[in-house]
Amino acid sequence: MIGIKSIASYVPLAGVDNYAQGAKFGKDDEFILGKIGSAFLPRKDDAQETSDLCVEAVNALFANNPDLKRESIDALIVVTQNGDEEGLPHTAAIVQDKLGLPTNVAAFDISLGCSGYVYGIYALKGFMEAAGLKNGLLITADPYSKIVDPEDRNTTMLFGDAATATWMGEGAPWQLGKAKFGTDGSGAAHLKVSNGVFFMNGRQVFNFALLKVPAHLHELLQESGLDQSDIDAFCIHQGSAAIVDAVARRFEGEPEKFIKDMLETGNTISSSIPLLLEKHVLDASWKRVALSGFGVGLSWGSAIIYRP
Amino acid sequence: MIGIKSIASYVPLAGVDNYAQGAKFGKDDEFILGKIGSAFLPRKDDAQETSDLCVEAVNALFANNPDLKRESIDALIVVTQNGDEEGLPHTAAIVQDKLGLPTNVAAFDISLGCSGYVYGIYALKGFMEAAGLKNGLLITADPYSKIVDPEDRNTTMLFGDAATATWMGEGAPWQLGKAKFGTDGSGAAHLKVSNGVFFMNGRQVFNFALLKVPAHLHELLQESGLDQSDIDAFCIHQGSAAIVDAVARRFEGEPEKFIKDMLETGNTISSSIPLLLEKHVLDASWKRVALSGFGVGLSWGSAIIYRP
Repeated sequence: MIGIKSIASYVPLAGVDNYAQGAKFGKDDEFILGKIGSAFLPRKDDAQETSDLCVEAVNALFANNPDLKRESIDALIVVTQNGDEEGLPHTAAIVQDKLGLPTNVAAFDISLGCSGYVYGIYALKGFMEAAGLKNGLLITADPYSKIVDPEDRNTTMLFGDAATATWMGEGAPWQLGKAKFGTDGSGAAHLKVSNGVFFMNGRQVFNFALLKVPAHLHELLQESGLDQSDIDAFCIHQGSAAIVDAVARRFEGEPEKFIKDMLETGNTISSSIPLLLEKHVLDASWKRVALSGFGVGLSWGSAIIYRP
Repeated sequence: MIGIKSIASYVPLAGVDNYAQGAKFGKDDEFILGKIGSAFLPRKDDAQETSDLCVEAVNALFANNPDLKRESIDALIVVTQNGDEEGLPHTAAIVQDKLGLPTNVAAFDISLGCSGYVYGIYALKGFMEAAGLKNGLLITADPYSKIVDPEDRNTTMLFGDAATATWMGEGAPWQLGKAKFGTDGSGAAHLKVSNGVFFMNGRQVFNFALLKVPAHLHELLQESGLDQSDIDAFCIHQGSAAIVDAVARRFEGEPEKFIKDMLETGNTISSSIPLLLEKHVLDASWKRVALSGFGVGLSWGSAIIYRP
C-alpha cells in the first residue's frame, strides 16, 4: 500500500509585513492576527517561476531523505493553477528537467486550488498503484502573488507563496484511509481570474466553507465508524484564522484539536495542509488525523490518514 | 477492477476545408492527404467554451448508455491545457455544474496534451480505486483553435477541435494492462504557448516521436511478455499521417495494424486515441490493443488494453 513517507517545503524568506499592509487599509493588529491570522506573507522573487518553488521543495525533501535517490523517482504530480507557462506545457515537465529526474518519470499537473492536496494524495497513490510505479512526488505550488492585486483589500492580506513536496511509496508510516470529495461549479464565479487578476467574494467563500466543511468532516467520521474523539488532530486548509476558528467551534468540546498555524505563511492554497503535516503531524505519536481542503471550484475534499 | 465501459465523442460539424487551406500555403492535395492526413478540420463555434465541448461529449455518452445515471457519477476528470478560465477555476467544476451532476462528484483537471488519454485512464482508474468511487468520466477536450494562429503554416493545417467522454467503472469489457510513461522537459520549448499563440517546432517533434514511440511500444511488449503478433491493433496519437506511417513502418510486416483515421478530424490532441477506440475498437472482437500518446511536455505514454 502506497502512503506518505516524508514531506518537505519551501517558504520564501522575503515577504510582506501584514501589519503594515493592514494599516494601509485601516485594519488594526487585532484584525490581522485574529481574523486573517498571518503577520507575514512570504513572497517569491519576481525571477522565480512556479517550477523553481517546486525544485526548492523537492531539494529539501532529498536533503532530509538521503535514501531517496533522484533516479528512483518514477511519478511526479504538480498541483497548481498558476504554472510556469500559458496552459502548455505542464509545469511537471519543466520540474522533471530542472531536477534532472530520469525521463521514465510519469509527470502531469493537477488543476485544483485549496482542495488540491487532499485530492492529490489519492490521485498520486491511485495512479502509482494502477500503473505499477514505486516512488512518487506530490508537489504543491500555487503562488498567488502572480495574480493577486496588491491594491485589492479583499485578497492581498490573505495569501502567501510556498511549495511542498510529499514522497509517496511503499512502507510508509502514514497510510490513507477513507476520503470524501465534492464539487459545486455553480460557485465558480466566487473565486476566479479575469484578465490576469484574481477576484474573490470572501463572504460567499466563508459561508460555503462554514456550511460544507464541518458537515463533510462529521459525515466522513460517521461513514468511517469513528467518533471525533478517535481523531488526534484536524488539519484543515488554513484559509484564514476566522474560518479555522469557525469550523473548529462546530466540534464541541475539542476545538483545540484543530491545528492553526499560518502566522508566518498566510493562506498558501494547496500547500497549507502539507505544511501542517510536515511541522505538526508526521513525527508526532498521533494515530489518526483528519484533513479537509476547500476553495476554488468550488471544490472540497476530506480524508483520514492513520498510522497502520 | 475498474476498466473502460463506453466512449462517446463530440466533433463540431463546422470547420475548415484543409485542401483550400493547403492551396493558400502552396501545398497540393497529395501533401494534405499523404503527409497531414486530414481533408477537414472541425472547429468549435466562437461562442462554445471548452466546457461546452465536454458537455456535448458526455451527453452523447448518456444517450448511448441509458443505464448510466447522472446521479451515479462520482468522479470526473477533464484532460485539457486550454480550459475555460485563466488558470482557475478548473474546467471540471464548470462541467459538473453545466451537466447538473451531483455535488458529491470528485472533479479535477489534468494538464497534459497528446499523451493525456493514456495517462488519464490510469489516473482516473487509480484515483477511483484509491478513493472507493464507482462511476467515473474521463473527458478530453483541448480545442487548439483557441491558440493556433491561422496564418502559421506549421500548425494551422494540423489541428482539429473535438471532445470525448469515457465511462470507467466495474464490470467493464476492456481492462487496463501494463503501461509505461515518460517525460522530457528539456524539450518543453518545442511545443508551447507564448502571448496566447501556439508555437511548434514540427521537425523536432517529429524526430522525438519517431525516436521514442516505436522503441517505447517495443519495450512495453517485451516487459509484458508479448510479441507484436499478440496485438490486434495499435491506436497511436494521430499527430499527422506522416508520423503514424513512420511509426508503423518500425513494426515489420504488420504496419496495417496501425489504425489511421484522421481524415475528417485532424490532430485532436488528447481526443485522438479515444476517437479511434470509440470507432474501431470498443465493439470489435479484438482481444488486445496497444495505445501510445506523445507530444507537448515532452510527454509520452503507452499502454495495453485487453478483454479479460
